Amino acid sequence: VIVPLTGTEWIVDAAGCHPAALADIDHVRRCCDEIIAAMDLHVAAPPAWRRFDGPGGVTGLYLLSESHLTCHTFPEHGLLTLNVYCCKARTAPDWTALLESHFGAMDVHVRELIRGGLTDPSTSELSGVAT
Amino acid sequence: VIVPLTGTEWIVDAAGCHPAALADIDHVRRCCDEIIAAMDLHVAAPPAWRRFDGPGGVTGLYLLSESHLTCHTFPEHGLLTLNVYCCKARTAPDWTALLESHFGAMDVHVRELIRGGLTDPSTSELSGVAT
Repeated sequence: VIVPLTGTEWIVDAAGCHPAALADIDHVRRCCDEIIAAMDLHVAAPPAWRRFDGPGGVTGLYLLSESHLTCHTFPEHGLLTLNVYCCKARTAPDWTALLESHFGAMDVHVRELIRGGLTDPSTSELSGVAT
Repeated sequence: VIVPLTGTEWIVDAAGCHPAALADIDHVRRCCDEIIAAMDLHVAAPPAWRRFDGPGGVTGLYLLSESHLTCHTFPEHGLLTLNVYCCKARTAPDWTALLESHFGAMDVHVRELIRGGLTDPSTSELSGVAT
């Protein structure tokens, strides 16, 4: 089966974040909204947001014309995990700089996955350590 | 920065699917609901669904207590792309069998990513060709 490529997904795990910022749903939302604006993405349904009990992690999901953005935070671990799946060509922001500025992230790991390219799946990895 | 693992994400790309099934939002929804039930996942907000104009691809997003499930279809390419991110231990279904039975998928590619394990990111890949 020959399959065309249908987009890129950035899988971003950011560690060493400030727990209070990760538990602040409005703060996390502002960061996601900034990514959507910076990448010229378009929200196609009301975003879903939820703050969970316990450590107060939050989840946000955006249905986009260009696929989706999801974000989870784990204040108890200082961790934020982000997915941005984009079925149209876009340039990613500097994830390390972005997550350092919003959350004080100290260690940002980015995987860039090609979706739909079944016969030659491509994953490239890079890590950025905030300076 | 030492970071605990915070879950597993299955990235599943299924090719050779029946276009009519991929454009049928109720059919795609039933498949996603079956995955959620089979993996003992719990929906924590109303799922977002949208059918797009043109080839009629659909998108579904579920905010789960255990993170998220997202699904996109591309009828023009016979392709379905699925993400299941699970921050609690779960056993994945047989993706190849599942997507063959629902959509006639002929080629299913699965990547299993560990989230949050920044210093030793682990991606395992396997492909299943439906028989």
